[in-house]
Amino acid sequence: MRAPRRVGTGTNQEAVRRHNLGTVLRHVHRAGQLSRAELTRRMGLNRSTIAALASELETLGITEHSGPSEERQGAGRPSTGVRLAASGPYVIAVDLTVDRATVARVGLGGRIQQRAHAATTGLGEAWQVGAAVATLIRRVVADAPPSAPLVGIGIAVPGLVRRGDGLIRLAPNLEWHDVSFSSVVLAALGVEIPIVVANDADLGALAEHERGAGVGIDDLVYISGQVGVGAGIIAGGHPLEGVGGYAGEVGHLRFDPNGLPCHCGSVGCWETAVGGHAIASAIGWSPEKVSQLPEHLESLTSASRELRGIGSDIGRGLASIVNAFNPQLVVLGGYFGSLYPLVRDEILSGLSGAALSAAVDSVTLSVPALGDDAVLLGAAEAALEPLLVDPVGSIGAALLDVPARLAG
Amino acid sequence: MRAPRRVGTGTNQEAVRRHNLGTVLRHVHRAGQLSRAELTRRMGLNRSTIAALASELETLGITEHSGPSEERQGAGRPSTGVRLAASGPYVIAVDLTVDRATVARVGLGGRIQQRAHAATTGLGEAWQVGAAVATLIRRVVADAPPSAPLVGIGIAVPGLVRRGDGLIRLAPNLEWHDVSFSSVVLAALGVEIPIVVANDADLGALAEHERGAGVGIDDLVYISGQVGVGAGIIAGGHPLEGVGGYAGEVGHLRFDPNGLPCHCGSVGCWETAVGGHAIASAIGWSPEKVSQLPEHLESLTSASRELRGIGSDIGRGLASIVNAFNPQLVVLGGYFGSLYPLVRDEILSGLSGAALSAAVDSVTLSVPALGDDAVLLGAAEAALEPLLVDPVGSIGAALLDVPARLAG
Ligand SMILES: [Zn+2]
Ligand SMILES: [Zn+2]
Repeated sequence: MRAPRRVGTGTNQEAVRRHNLGTVLRHVHRAGQLSRAELTRRMGLNRSTIAALASELETLGITEHSGPSEERQGAGRPSTGVRLAASGPYVIAVDLTVDRATVARVGLGGRIQQRAHAATTGLGEAWQVGAAVATLIRRVVADAPPSAPLVGIGIAVPGLVRRGDGLIRLAPNLEWHDVSFSSVVLAALGVEIPIVVANDADLGALAEHERGAGVGIDDLVYISGQVGVGAGIIAGGHPLEGVGGYAGEVGHLRFDPNGLPCHCGSVGCWETAVGGHAIASAIGWSPEKVSQLPEHLESLTSASRELRGIGSDIGRGLASIVNAFNPQLVVLGGYFGSLYPLVRDEILSGLSGAALSAAVDSVTLSVPALGDDAVLLGAAEAALEPLLVDPVGSIGAALLDVPARLAG
Repeated sequence: MRAPRRVGTGTNQEAVRRHNLGTVLRHVHRAGQLSRAELTRRMGLNRSTIAALASELETLGITEHSGPSEERQGAGRPSTGVRLAASGPYVIAVDLTVDRATVARVGLGGRIQQRAHAATTGLGEAWQVGAAVATLIRRVVADAPPSAPLVGIGIAVPGLVRRGDGLIRLAPNLEWHDVSFSSVVLAALGVEIPIVVANDADLGALAEHERGAGVGIDDLVYISGQVGVGAGIIAGGHPLEGVGGYAGEVGHLRFDPNGLPCHCGSVGCWETAVGGHAIASAIGWSPEKVSQLPEHLESLTSASRELRGIGSDIGRGLASIVNAFNPQLVVLGGYFGSLYPLVRDEILSGLSGAALSAAVDSVTLSVPALGDDAVLLGAAEAALEPLLVDPVGSIGAALLDVPARLAG
């Protein structure tokens, strides 16, 4: 019997080579630096293939070689290393919350090279926020090496983002409906460049899975506890998206049918009990001060009865999440991360009192290993993805002479 | 640059051939019968390879060839077909509910060849239920063709089943804890045969995805509305398992903090409001009569106020599920399927009043296309899976002379 025939072997070999080039880069992106011997081992390719791929990445200006490492492979030669180029390609990451925009220039390896932020309170319209974001982008690229290519922009938003085209279907706490925010930002910048918009919690999950608390963990939930509450879910090693991209809207899980009305139109959703406004109210603050919550919470040494009540309600809501998704890890991001050290016991007892013990037994709670940058770094990861899939194609589509092209 | 080298090419070709053999069989299993030309097209292999694979499946007694079909491929010869052998391999499927065991002999293509059932009320111990199941298995294999191999047993249980080893961690409504039910059944049968135990809703989802209402739908939720309520979830085309295999325990989502105590130890879980006992109570029945609910519900032409209230609560609970998973399809199995025609409006308004509209817009509700057999056929699919992955290995491990070997 003949082996299965493949159509178009030449094309296929070229596709395999480009795919391998991306895979080498992904390994170096994750590790920061790797010896060729280690790449040979991880990819199951031979030394000369790895050498050729590394050399091509160098020619593209993405990596550079480091001197021979001490490591020796049996009787083999000392292996030279592959590391990320200092002036290599980078992306712009944007983390949009209800009252603030944070923008960073981020290189491969998740290295934040420069950052800037601005308050967005009062900028009600998407185009106003887009203009503010464009100004921040200009600021963070001004000092970028002129030779370094900008391969894309990634934007995290607290809302429902449609899979496929990145339309913001609804960002309830921004009061945005059907906003094509990527077009708004590109229009404000006046350039054409790959751009991806995604849900903030989904990006937090991506970053913590890739280089945070969830490395090597296939089933995790990242909770973004902001004014709104949402989750990004990794299930079986892959993002859980749902048919439209809206999976993980755990802030709107039913929590208390006699609770408060929610922005979403329903009543007593979990976020009405534990979101930023509920936390602010628990300490007697007005909703306007919500952005100062993290600093305040981190300054406290003990929790009031009201904050302990919020902790219990966070735990009781996590019980539904743990019963639904059976994760190995739940990462508590946003305000929840600031609250966690104060009300850890209340969260844990709220959880274990209401979730199935088989599911509780297998879950760990943690704060983001990437701290406040989890969502921002997730936006960077999403923007870097095309480069990791096809370095040649992505560099070819990148913006060059960026500081000059984007000069205000 | 050299193409990537693979280690052990000989072994690899053998693995590819066995994999292709399974894939041919999976196509025929799904379609019932296919022409070789169609197999050639679907698998992207050439005609002689398909012919050799079909011939090997025939030699194994799994398929047989059907006469040349009318279909012609341009100038080519008429294509002969591949269909499932009448006396080919089969599996035993078991659907265990709180009060009843249903057992069937099921062939490839999901063909139920024979079935039997028995009440299990009063059989509190797992070994007693296992003995009853073994008796039913003996009954359904008694008339099987002696030459047909039994390749495995699949068992659906209403409980938390541990991924990997199939241990029943908890079946709350059976009051089972840490039961190795597969060992119990094999001990009662006195034979060694591949056996798989899985959660009933997970198997319902598998069957509806494979050959029911969810064919071609990558994001679906199957709800098993029995005395307990659970969900099987397909996300992105793959089962959502969770780290321990316990994902989808939607019956224990928080529904009403002032509600009834639940078997799981919590209070006001969704299943306390909409499970079999709540439905029985809504029509003034005692919990003991719960197994007669489907027949009764299907005889009704209109719903009482109490049943309409159950419908609204089903919809309100589905809202949490739709917000969490963003499915394209929700299949309402068990008692929910019997209720659906009576309280469709209440379910839909409960859902749309509480779920995010972006998620509601993309979801459809349906009853199982496979009717009451969804879970049973899912158990069959799970038991057939090793045969579809490696027909040679699975037939080699199968039980032969089954009627004689299992004679009581
Ligand atoms: Zn809500
Ligand atoms: Zn419960």
